[in-house]
Amino acid sequence: MAVGNIPSMDLPPVRGFRMAATASGVKTNGTLDLLLVEMEPHCSVAGVFTKNRVPAAPVQLCRERASYNVAEGLIVNSGNANASTGIQGMLDCKTMASAAATALGVPAERIFVSSTGVIGEPLPVHHIVQATPELANQLTDDGWKEAAEAIMTTDTFPKGSFRQFEVMEHAATVVGIAKGSGMIHPDMATMLGFLFTDSAITSQALQVLLSRAVEASFNSISVDGDTSTNDTVLVFASGRAEHALIDDPDDPQAQPLAQALCQVCRDLAQTIVRDGEGATKFITVTVKGAGSETDAKQVGLTVAGSSLVKTACFGSDPNWGRIIAAVGNAGVELTPETITIHLGDVLIVEQGGRADSYTEAAGQAVMDQEEITITIDLGLGDAESTVWTSDLSHEYVTINADYRT
Amino acid sequence: MAVGNIPSMDLPPVRGFRMAATASGVKTNGTLDLLLVEMEPHCSVAGVFTKNRVPAAPVQLCRERASYNVAEGLIVNSGNANASTGIQGMLDCKTMASAAATALGVPAERIFVSSTGVIGEPLPVHHIVQATPELANQLTDDGWKEAAEAIMTTDTFPKGSFRQFEVMEHAATVVGIAKGSGMIHPDMATMLGFLFTDSAITSQALQVLLSRAVEASFNSISVDGDTSTNDTVLVFASGRAEHALIDDPDDPQAQPLAQALCQVCRDLAQTIVRDGEGATKFITVTVKGAGSETDAKQVGLTVAGSSLVKTACFGSDPNWGRIIAAVGNAGVELTPETITIHLGDVLIVEQGGRADSYTEAAGQAVMDQEEITITIDLGLGDAESTVWTSDLSHEYVTINADYRT
Repeated sequence: MAVGNIPSMDLPPVRGFRMAATASGVKTNGTLDLLLVEMEPHCSVAGVFTKNRVPAAPVQLCRERASYNVAEGLIVNSGNANASTGIQGMLDCKTMASAAATALGVPAERIFVSSTGVIGEPLPVHHIVQATPELANQLTDDGWKEAAEAIMTTDTFPKGSFRQFEVMEHAATVVGIAKGSGMIHPDMATMLGFLFTDSAITSQALQVLLSRAVEASFNSISVDGDTSTNDTVLVFASGRAEHALIDDPDDPQAQPLAQALCQVCRDLAQTIVRDGEGATKFITVTVKGAGSETDAKQVGLTVAGSSLVKTACFGSDPNWGRIIAAVGNAGVELTPETITIHLGDVLIVEQGGRADSYTEAAGQAVMDQEEITITIDLGLGDAESTVWTSDLSHEYVTINADYRT
Repeated sequence: MAVGNIPSMDLPPVRGFRMAATASGVKTNGTLDLLLVEMEPHCSVAGVFTKNRVPAAPVQLCRERASYNVAEGLIVNSGNANASTGIQGMLDCKTMASAAATALGVPAERIFVSSTGVIGEPLPVHHIVQATPELANQLTDDGWKEAAEAIMTTDTFPKGSFRQFEVMEHAATVVGIAKGSGMIHPDMATMLGFLFTDSAITSQALQVLLSRAVEASFNSISVDGDTSTNDTVLVFASGRAEHALIDDPDDPQAQPLAQALCQVCRDLAQTIVRDGEGATKFITVTVKGAGSETDAKQVGLTVAGSSLVKTACFGSDPNWGRIIAAVGNAGVELTPETITIHLGDVLIVEQGGRADSYTEAAGQAVMDQEEITITIDLGLGDAESTVWTSDLSHEYVTINADYRT
């Protein structure tokens, strides 16, 4: 069901990282469900986590460990989110970390843990404990595709992207993998993203660059308006590119890395939307002419999150009244008379009403396409923002009405 | 597709009001689409309107006229919302009011106007102008069912309710009619509600009673999270019950009327949910133990608005992890360890994790029912709030993917 082109999973090695994946048995259908990543000692690390007030155990663990600024391993399971699992959930999470630490021969508190899948079921951690030692014997530097497959839940394909760049005349790489197709909404979703770079940067500077990249990517997509208990984006930097250590995120020398992180995050975020549960359309909503970037994003997310706009896109119905109604719902101060809306290249609304030049046939031609662009100019200022979403289809309902069976 | 029992449309006359409905041609399928209500001279009036920032012309008109505190007529069309129609929309709206005023022989500025249907299409006001004079010859005091039918859009049945009560030993009545089945969300929706009483009360006191009644009814339901450009609840009071004029909303003498307004509004709001587009389940979400009523309502609306909770209800899947995840998304300060959740009578979550006594079979038995109650105790305080919603079904997508054809 993926919409449009999706990035290749032919991803290059990144110095300082090796990985292995297996089917441990957490997923009962025998597909890959466990990922182990070995890291260069003393990697820098930064993370962005769900704002959900009932975060899963692994989110609580990673949030604390990210504050120590050093990482030496990552273990991730799919098939069970280890969320709403109480005290036992945290014990199980630490057991996962210990299993990885023992297998990799590093301190347990330098292991990062993520889980994704059903919420509320106890984690069958014995499968993970049993499978982890053997994973440490299978580590490779080109296992990205299997790594991305091992973190999938309702995803229909593995998701990855990369950029190669130069920092101070040293070649460097960023590779990212991600999972997510439902429960996608800022701030984040049942969304896991892991980025790996051989650039050399302090954890503090890396945190600033990651936060900026996430705001314009993972926090600018919406599939169904739900935010999960497990959302996590982590980035690890091994320093093996051997350029001078970046410690100022605003240093011009940091910009190639900053840009590569942004591009990889945006690729991954858009790919998640293209694999949105039941998606048949890829919708880009750009809001211009806003009084502030916050207002622009709020309007964009309200339009992108409207069930009525999304079902109209599914039905290829140029029911533009729903777009302007959603604009009005964003809670942002507006003057209807200054609003202009384009559907693709077609002017549909000017001065708050239907454009004289608009024809149903022209609107229909845009809506019939698989990729739909909605451009809203509020006519109030200079700020703008872009968000991405998918449509709301029968298949979405089918997938979610009976997810667990 | 209505879920459960719906109120009878056998509604009593209310002294001071007569009505007539016809098929004017705004709806091209020949069904009823125009309602005219004649009123006792100098009725009191109060209104609550959409918070959408691009309100339709009739909403702008009614909001202004409600401030004059006197009503003598109401005209409503379905089939076209007269929203996002610019300056012409306001001219057309005033033309509707003038047609009604001429037919009823009252000043135009005492006529209230509502429209519901497709957004953005010019209103074919000539049909209304042509049909209105004849309507004035057909006025009756028992035309509630046709009145409710004339304001329907995607509704599958007409909606009405009433209460009879005594004020200062004088018998009085409230009748309400409403429409709405999609785009239902606080603060209101493509939702029109009109209430009529023969009680005697000032417009100012009536406004207070109406606002309270709406908060606990129309503003406590959610179908799809969209708020329309046209939402309107109006109440008119003829004073024909001939008790002493109520001018203090907190006067004990006003309480029978206040209670009747609340009950009629709640009946209508729940009936709208039972007719939710594609609804197969009626879901009551009660949040207790909150620090404030605002927090309780925010949590309730977040759970009721979650696409994942709603699809799980459609699939009769006791996927309670989605409920607690939605609780965490409400943006309200929580301590996961104090959260208790019941599904019907079944304890599913205690201390933030799955209850030891919980069995899938017990959860399944609740989810299989047509009426589902979710009770969430935050364990933080004494405040509580109840909201109502429907599930998210295939039929919802079908209805909305191609609404206009």
